[in-house]
Amino acid sequence: MTLAYKELETRFAHLATFREAIGILTWDRETTMPRGGAPGRADQLAALEGLCHGMLSEPSVGDLLEQAEGESGALEEAQQANIRAMRRVWRHANAVPADLVEAQSRACSACQGVWLEARPAADFAAFLPTFSEVINLTRQSAAAKADAMETSPYDALLDEYDPGLTEARIDPLFERLADVLPGHLEHARANQREPEPLAGPFPIADQEALGRKLMAATGFDFERGRLDVSAHPFTGGATGDVRITTRYDENDFASGIMGVMHETGHALYEQGLPDAWVGQPAGRDAGMSIHESQSLLIEMQVGRGRPFLEFLAPLLRETYGGDGPGWQVDNLVRLSNRVEPGFIRVDADEITYPFHIILRYRLERDLLSGNLDPADLPPAWNDGLEALLGIRPPDDRLGCLQDIHWSDGLIGYFPTYTLGALAAAQLYRAALDAHPEIPDGLRRGDFGVLLSWLRGNVHQWGAILTTDELIEKATGAPLSTAAFENHLAERYGG
Amino acid sequence: MTLAYKELETRFAHLATFREAIGILTWDRETTMPRGGAPGRADQLAALEGLCHGMLSEPSVGDLLEQAEGESGALEEAQQANIRAMRRVWRHANAVPADLVEAQSRACSACQGVWLEARPAADFAAFLPTFSEVINLTRQSAAAKADAMETSPYDALLDEYDPGLTEARIDPLFERLADVLPGHLEHARANQREPEPLAGPFPIADQEALGRKLMAATGFDFERGRLDVSAHPFTGGATGDVRITTRYDENDFASGIMGVMHETGHALYEQGLPDAWVGQPAGRDAGMSIHESQSLLIEMQVGRGRPFLEFLAPLLRETYGGDGPGWQVDNLVRLSNRVEPGFIRVDADEITYPFHIILRYRLERDLLSGNLDPADLPPAWNDGLEALLGIRPPDDRLGCLQDIHWSDGLIGYFPTYTLGALAAAQLYRAALDAHPEIPDGLRRGDFGVLLSWLRGNVHQWGAILTTDELIEKATGAPLSTAAFENHLAERYGG
Repeated sequence: MTLAYKELETRFAHLATFREAIGILTWDRETTMPRGGAPGRADQLAALEGLCHGMLSEPSVGDLLEQAEGESGALEEAQQANIRAMRRVWRHANAVPADLVEAQSRACSACQGVWLEARPAADFAAFLPTFSEVINLTRQSAAAKADAMETSPYDALLDEYDPGLTEARIDPLFERLADVLPGHLEHARANQREPEPLAGPFPIADQEALGRKLMAATGFDFERGRLDVSAHPFTGGATGDVRITTRYDENDFASGIMGVMHETGHALYEQGLPDAWVGQPAGRDAGMSIHESQSLLIEMQVGRGRPFLEFLAPLLRETYGGDGPGWQVDNLVRLSNRVEPGFIRVDADEITYPFHIILRYRLERDLLSGNLDPADLPPAWNDGLEALLGIRPPDDRLGCLQDIHWSDGLIGYFPTYTLGALAAAQLYRAALDAHPEIPDGLRRGDFGVLLSWLRGNVHQWGAILTTDELIEKATGAPLSTAAFENHLAERYGG
Repeated sequence: MTLAYKELETRFAHLATFREAIGILTWDRETTMPRGGAPGRADQLAALEGLCHGMLSEPSVGDLLEQAEGESGALEEAQQANIRAMRRVWRHANAVPADLVEAQSRACSACQGVWLEARPAADFAAFLPTFSEVINLTRQSAAAKADAMETSPYDALLDEYDPGLTEARIDPLFERLADVLPGHLEHARANQREPEPLAGPFPIADQEALGRKLMAATGFDFERGRLDVSAHPFTGGATGDVRITTRYDENDFASGIMGVMHETGHALYEQGLPDAWVGQPAGRDAGMSIHESQSLLIEMQVGRGRPFLEFLAPLLRETYGGDGPGWQVDNLVRLSNRVEPGFIRVDADEITYPFHIILRYRLERDLLSGNLDPADLPPAWNDGLEALLGIRPPDDRLGCLQDIHWSDGLIGYFPTYTLGALAAAQLYRAALDAHPEIPDGLRRGDFGVLLSWLRGNVHQWGAILTTDELIEKATGAPLSTAAFENHLAERYGG
């Protein structure tokens, strides 16, 4: 280890500590904070973000990075990966002036506040002014990053969420999906049998208790994490304190449970990140595509598959006193895998979900480039969805106001959902090939073999391997749509 | 306003933002955090404390203070008070080197962790090593502050919790109490009638709902605050987000309710601090004696008085389906005002409570001066309590391990509890003299007149007036034991 490298480790560990404080304060804002706390919390988060930005933009950090890179022959491979990850974090921070970062933080806080009221009211006009400001600032930030990274503005944003991801990497994958998914969709819709709906109410306390049981079965460690409620499910918190949220609907137990399964996938990844690299960039996740692959592997690949539903069915009957054919595995399989074009991304099945992403991918590139004026988003959205899925939102609540992401300045994030779905299929296939006994375990609620494969092949690598390296090492092939297509064919026939 | 003053306001507002982040993270640690989050949280809090300390110890702050003090003729009175409050904060921070501050933070985190296990096990030997370290570091810190402030080490610590408080101010008050309280105690015990105990269980959800009803009656604003549960009740959070906690006992509704009343008193003060001074030292509380006066005014003066109990009695009967003479006001008065020497400070009645404080006051001065070795604390404690109250703790759980304060390095804090009790009696007397209709309001659960008097005479002043100025202005006399003695005579006869 070189002196420069050691000093960088100290600096980044200090930075990570403030980032963890941000993680807890953000979680609290979404789950716990009373309304009156909002202005103060915005100040706290902006001050902490500004502080982190300041730590990264001290000139000495750039000097240390150059020095450590020059001496990187003296470092172990993982340390070299850590330096690369540091450089990337540094590059994103230093490309953008501090006052722009703070302006973005404030604009996003304001825009999210407006969005919370504008969405239920389907009031795009109310949303537009703060949204335009967020897009305007994001354009400035993307341009500055593109300059510093010698890449396109959109690729510069993609790299924030998934290191090294580019449009060039996404385009062929999304084009292939746009080609083959209509066939899968048609086939699934023609062949699916109507499930019998299960009648509630399903008391929320019971849903929560069942969620905790499922989390425990997957291997979630409650000594190092929590389950709570928020308007939009997410995974947050800090090292040793991984907090997931879900939301419950008294008339539909599935949304709460699948929220729990999805976030538990994220949380297992967080809880499995390498202890030896806590506080270092190399000890974080490999990027949002891999992160999403872990949530979708648990929710979609496992959670909606027959073996797990065989474990779930008796638990459901016991929890809700259910009886009759609706509560049998066959019907749960039908309920969990029903395919139907709809307006809302988060309610979409796994065949139509990528269409929602492709729509957002197209629109956000145009918003960023200026080809699409924020004021023209609603018709562009509605036309785009109609072209892809044949349905047209009746209002903006069911259209372009449905997601929180853009109001939070998250542009370049959406593609990782579908890349995650592809990676989930490919990783799960590899796990099954290595351990054909996994489904038998799931039937008994035993996730041990699967979790241990994920720990060894995904979680423990943190960001030491890149997304591409990790997938190739774990599955023997680069990321493609093949495993996902096979999965759809297997699950939906065709 | 001068330029130097304006720049100081900006700096202190920034500092306050980080302090508010610390407030939320500390609240979370006590109410929400899973065990596994503890090491990370200790790092986060230490880093933020270090940051705040660093902001205050920048040489430019000292220069700005000198400049602003020199130009203070150009400032309004409240701004001058703000400068004085800044100087005090600055003096405390700059008297102590940063590495000692961080060592204290870490030692206190460690000691509190040990205390959590040592207390129920009555294991002083396990507690001693980390406790000795806390005392050792507190001595160093107090010595450094005494040096900088040209005062005694103990007075330097007192000033942390109550600006300007000194041993010389406390001694005559505590000596008078030590003289007169035995007579009140004897009289009350001889004359009190045995209350009829109320049999539980009292479901916790009902206790919580009742607590919220009482909070709402006092004027607590739930849009700007919360009620939660922790092992030890406290008031925390941030501006616009004042969070109180209590603990519930299924077999005793009184402890949960009185916890709520006590912390609500603190919270009303926090919610009533002057909006115009948010983020400035002058906009904080006047000190812990006034803070405690607000909690004790609500809990002891109001909450255990007959008018309020007339409001509470039907609510209790309705909540718990209670019936018979035990649930009538007379019995509630007897239950709420029962006097009996006991080992535990937080369970003490208002006559014996000051003895517990006098004991800690004597011991902590000796711990700080080195006259008492931490290893010798248990016998010193037991001898001291026996001399004051005639009872001897059978073990250290009921003796010197009962409080969290010293494990958290809080030395010089305890006296403010009893000064707060004196101030509560004196302020409530003044409020009653100004508005004899207050008790009639309380009988109906209407706190409006009382709250408005407190807002105008206490809360809105923040730290613009000193403790002594505030009490003299609100009550027409300096703080003394007279109102408290009259209150005891009135409530307990004699």
